[in-house]
Amino acid sequence: MNSFGSFFRVSIFGESHGPNVGITVDGCPPGIPLTEADFEADLGRRQGGNVRGATPRKEADTPRLVSGVFDGHTTGAPLTILFENSNTISSDYSRFLDVPRPGHADFTARKKFRGFADYRGGGHFSGRITVALVAAGVIAKKIIAPMQVEASILEIAGTQDWTEVLEQAIREGDSLGGIVECVVHQVPAGLGEPFFNSVESVLSHMVFSIPAIKGIEFGAGFDAAYMRGSEHNDCYVSANGKTRTNHAGGIIGGITNGNPLVFRVAVKPTSSIGRPQKTFDFGARKQTILEVPGRHDACITLRMPPVIEAATALVLADLLMLSTVR
Amino acid sequence: MNSFGSFFRVSIFGESHGPNVGITVDGCPPGIPLTEADFEADLGRRQGGNVRGATPRKEADTPRLVSGVFDGHTTGAPLTILFENSNTISSDYSRFLDVPRPGHADFTARKKFRGFADYRGGGHFSGRITVALVAAGVIAKKIIAPMQVEASILEIAGTQDWTEVLEQAIREGDSLGGIVECVVHQVPAGLGEPFFNSVESVLSHMVFSIPAIKGIEFGAGFDAAYMRGSEHNDCYVSANGKTRTNHAGGIIGGITNGNPLVFRVAVKPTSSIGRPQKTFDFGARKQTILEVPGRHDACITLRMPPVIEAATALVLADLLMLSTVR
Amino acid sequence: MNSFGSFFRVSIFGESHGPNVGITVDGCPPGIPLTEADFEADLGRRQGGNVRGATPRKEADTPRLVSGVFDGHTTGAPLTILFENSNTISSDYSRFLDVPRPGHADFTARKKFRGFADYRGGGHFSGRITVALVAAGVIAKKIIAPMQVEASILEIAGTQDWTEVLEQAIREGDSLGGIVECVVHQVPAGLGEPFFNSVESVLSHMVFSIPAIKGIEFGAGFDAAYMRGSEHNDCYVSANGKTRTNHAGGIIGGITNGNPLVFRVAVKPTSSIGRPQKTFDFGARKQTILEVPGRHDACITLRMPPVIEAATALVLADLLMLSTVR
Amino acid sequence: MNSFGSFFRVSIFGESHGPNVGITVDGCPPGIPLTEADFEADLGRRQGGNVRGATPRKEADTPRLVSGVFDGHTTGAPLTILFENSNTISSDYSRFLDVPRPGHADFTARKKFRGFADYRGGGHFSGRITVALVAAGVIAKKIIAPMQVEASILEIAGTQDWTEVLEQAIREGDSLGGIVECVVHQVPAGLGEPFFNSVESVLSHMVFSIPAIKGIEFGAGFDAAYMRGSEHNDCYVSANGKTRTNHAGGIIGGITNGNPLVFRVAVKPTSSIGRPQKTFDFGARKQTILEVPGRHDACITLRMPPVIEAATALVLADLLMLSTVR
Repeated sequence: MNSFGSFFRVSIFGESHGPNVGITVDGCPPGIPLTEADFEADLGRRQGGNVRGATPRKEADTPRLVSGVFDGHTTGAPLTILFENSNTISSDYSRFLDVPRPGHADFTARKKFRGFADYRGGGHFSGRITVALVAAGVIAKKIIAPMQVEASILEIAGTQDWTEVLEQAIREGDSLGGIVECVVHQVPAGLGEPFFNSVESVLSHMVFSIPAIKGIEFGAGFDAAYMRGSEHNDCYVSANGKTRTNHAGGIIGGITNGNPLVFRVAVKPTSSIGRPQKTFDFGARKQTILEVPGRHDACITLRMPPVIEAATALVLADLLMLSTVR
Repeated sequence: MNSFGSFFRVSIFGESHGPNVGITVDGCPPGIPLTEADFEADLGRRQGGNVRGATPRKEADTPRLVSGVFDGHTTGAPLTILFENSNTISSDYSRFLDVPRPGHADFTARKKFRGFADYRGGGHFSGRITVALVAAGVIAKKIIAPMQVEASILEIAGTQDWTEVLEQAIREGDSLGGIVECVVHQVPAGLGEPFFNSVESVLSHMVFSIPAIKGIEFGAGFDAAYMRGSEHNDCYVSANGKTRTNHAGGIIGGITNGNPLVFRVAVKPTSSIGRPQKTFDFGARKQTILEVPGRHDACITLRMPPVIEAATALVLADLLMLSTVR
Repeated sequence: MNSFGSFFRVSIFGESHGPNVGITVDGCPPGIPLTEADFEADLGRRQGGNVRGATPRKEADTPRLVSGVFDGHTTGAPLTILFENSNTISSDYSRFLDVPRPGHADFTARKKFRGFADYRGGGHFSGRITVALVAAGVIAKKIIAPMQVEASILEIAGTQDWTEVLEQAIREGDSLGGIVECVVHQVPAGLGEPFFNSVESVLSHMVFSIPAIKGIEFGAGFDAAYMRGSEHNDCYVSANGKTRTNHAGGIIGGITNGNPLVFRVAVKPTSSIGRPQKTFDFGARKQTILEVPGRHDACITLRMPPVIEAATALVLADLLMLSTVR
Repeated sequence: MNSFGSFFRVSIFGESHGPNVGITVDGCPPGIPLTEADFEADLGRRQGGNVRGATPRKEADTPRLVSGVFDGHTTGAPLTILFENSNTISSDYSRFLDVPRPGHADFTARKKFRGFADYRGGGHFSGRITVALVAAGVIAKKIIAPMQVEASILEIAGTQDWTEVLEQAIREGDSLGGIVECVVHQVPAGLGEPFFNSVESVLSHMVFSIPAIKGIEFGAGFDAAYMRGSEHNDCYVSANGKTRTNHAGGIIGGITNGNPLVFRVAVKPTSSIGRPQKTFDFGARKQTILEVPGRHDACITLRMPPVIEAATALVLADLLMLSTVR
């Protein structure tokens, strides 16, 4: 279940501390100009090490295009992008097998994979593999042009100027959550495939694959629960389908209506914190205190926008291609 | 794209005012006792006509099992359930082709299906076809036992006692939104298929197929954005994986951890209202006022719990069956 | 696994002696003119009762379009076609549970579905449900026009004039196999989706779903094994890709090359015969002799051409729609 | 469409002369012992350079496991295997853009991918990428044990001792076709998922993905067309479902019956030959003569058995895993 998409389809692989993470893009149209330089901007935005509050672990993050590209263009054959993992420190993860870190997948991965999961650095559950998602998103953004996907941080820990709370959290070895908003401009009307592949369905499916996302809402979202129909209904004001308000977030009946697509996601505070935490020792079968030193993101929200953009672009590329079939 | 599920797979069909709506359940295990009486309870809960604020349009809603059942048990072959549509009044929907109702799929359906969509009563976009989803959910609930799925209304229009605001909305020809919470008990640890089929991913995918849902959050959800890691992380307290708090909503790394699965959805106010609304006349190419008399749900949230339960049970049945493969 | 197709997707259901057999066509483009009369010709060709050597069991075979059609056109929503089963005699099938008929699925169905399969008339394994496939094929043929699919019987029991051998087999309560050839004219170049969805792959996948098919070959097929490359290679003779010979059957590298698509299938002799046969009594755990009186096809090949055509058209409709995506 | 499988799923990528070919295996159970040495035997059997009549192009064919393996065992996460391409001579393939080689995908690839396909060495259409299929098959064989898959050459150019005809073909710069038979022992009854995923369906789907296969038949196959039912029907002789004959090839109603699974494939003569061939010059728009010097397989059948085995094992692994769900 490491693939997603109906026609434009990505398959992701790799672990945090294995040799490579990567992604294969299947169904990519031929003839798209593509070089390794195209990936720099978004990969750079995602990367830790530059922003205060993001992890100082810094990877080279150089994409290697090993198939599906020829003479500077996509060929139509599956396109695989590889990243090397370097700068990994794997020594002390085995102890989390018996003493799982709260908030991490240590416990669930062990349950699911019967003790065989690569536990180093979170393995396949690590946020590390979103580097591959971002790379695939670069291609998707080219496909969906002139649609423009823009994700930005709305707030961190409930504030729009978060410098101070962030510094405090870093000092205290703690972490913060936040909210990211994504807006897509120039969306054509008619994308989305009811009943089950509504735009909200496929976008949320993809977005909840990203580690740390715990909520999503479209347009007015949860506020819609507090509105009346006469207030929430967006009235059409012109022949191209533009509406006066956009409480629907650009999606009616699961299909885009030509207005900007708008959604917001809730990002939980990073699970890795520097403070001692209570947990259970499944070997000794008793409660215990765990301390996890190391390099952490105090706020993973900071690195989230390009990941959300990539997820969105991948979904829209698939929906766009499907919409051309009829 | 009217199918959903990896192994336990439903395919839905039908329009509000066509001869039938129905659903085919593929991948259903053989040997499950099943009679038409098993459907009564959930179909009754979903049905309009009983509750103040739900539509007085009342269908017989008698399921007809036309395949996949023999001698009172499922056979393992695809199981199709049909419902007749009756009590339909189709006369005056054609005018919405040029003058789309705000909030409804009139405009987007026309864009997508180039004017050929069955527009009567919302056609394939109608909440009517959730009757088929609820029926399939009855089977799914049997498969996932002893897991228990319970959805309930948390609030309508921001209140937990909504009698008064509801009466007022009805009087004023308006509608209300609300929030439904779903809790699943007895969930085994280990369900969910990362990277792309996290439990949140597949649940949200299915849930956003239901008309009128505009937001979903798991566990602490959007509140997680305001919490610190030291507060949000759920600490393990016993050898079966139980955690002291359940901010994760029973899902870590996309996989169930054995704690109750908890999520909430935002339901928008019903789009059909009795009050005059501004909209655009795409024939005359000018703004206009639309009045839509008729039978409406003043608050679709009231009928939502069994639909959310069915959606949840269908997803869990698929994840449960997949989890037995390894 | 009762669905097939990537975008144009059919889901089949029903048992030989249940209330209905049917099929849902998802991904059907809107706007295709469609009435129940369109189905008559192909359903008539498939039907038993008209041809000497085909079963005298004759169903009314009237398709009922219960969704996806409005005002005489497809709507783009899933299109479900139902057939009633009538003229069924179910009395004496239960004895095959312990004493399976050679060549029939009695034994394997019981193994797979743990005794819960509907065994009457072969249940879900019956050739009966190909009536639904033929109906869906009628729609597919409209989509792929001007492509033309024509299947015909090449030989029965090794002869091209089979009247005599057929009469003899009928007299002796025996059955005959045969070979059907299918040719598709006006195939555009470029259909097929390597690596795994070569034209041969998806056609053979679909065709082997039809009961009684045991072999398939494309173009020169098995004869290619006896040819040299210099003889087998089809040389191009004009700018539209036409080749002098067509040993490839119109498919190179899994992709159509614009020449006629040609394949042949081997149809085994009907498993139901009137003669006593040795089999095993799994209840008494000893070998025994089984006699199965009743209405049989002495040669199922006779009814096969419209079924093969439908299977082919369904596959080509899907490939054609996919080919428009890029 | 470069993925195959329902639960145990492979995604293939790479071109003949690109940096890498590879395959990702998703849905692989955790805990299977796996080292790079496990691949040697089957990769060696597939490799050219050892057998007279197979290409002297010899690759190192060293698999690199870049994900999904940890501490010598599969982890349950997607497992990616990479191969380097070396020993490639790409200089003179561009001329086939205008002057396609008969029998090769030059023309169809250009049609499909609008001139952007990597044409060097056949690109993504090259038999080269079957190295990845064979590697994935090694893992599949471990999963399906104690089932045993054995493919062998039945005949080449119609003879069972082909030394002489092969030498002659080599001398004359020509190529030969052949027939490969595959037998699987110890197959459990109950594999296969009707209606559309019959064992014949999924096996043929996978097998026709392999370049050069033009026919497949199960059990008696095309000979069944010449048999009577009384002769073809396999009678059960013991309580484990064993049949006296095996004309069905171990598959009844699309489901395995516990007898050996038997099928044969027709392999066309290698398209690359040393002799001058007529073709069309699509640039000059006239017929022409093409000569293609270089290293060719005079008979690709010679290298086919391990590829057919891998294809078969991959399909059976998926069917086996699916059969455990119910």
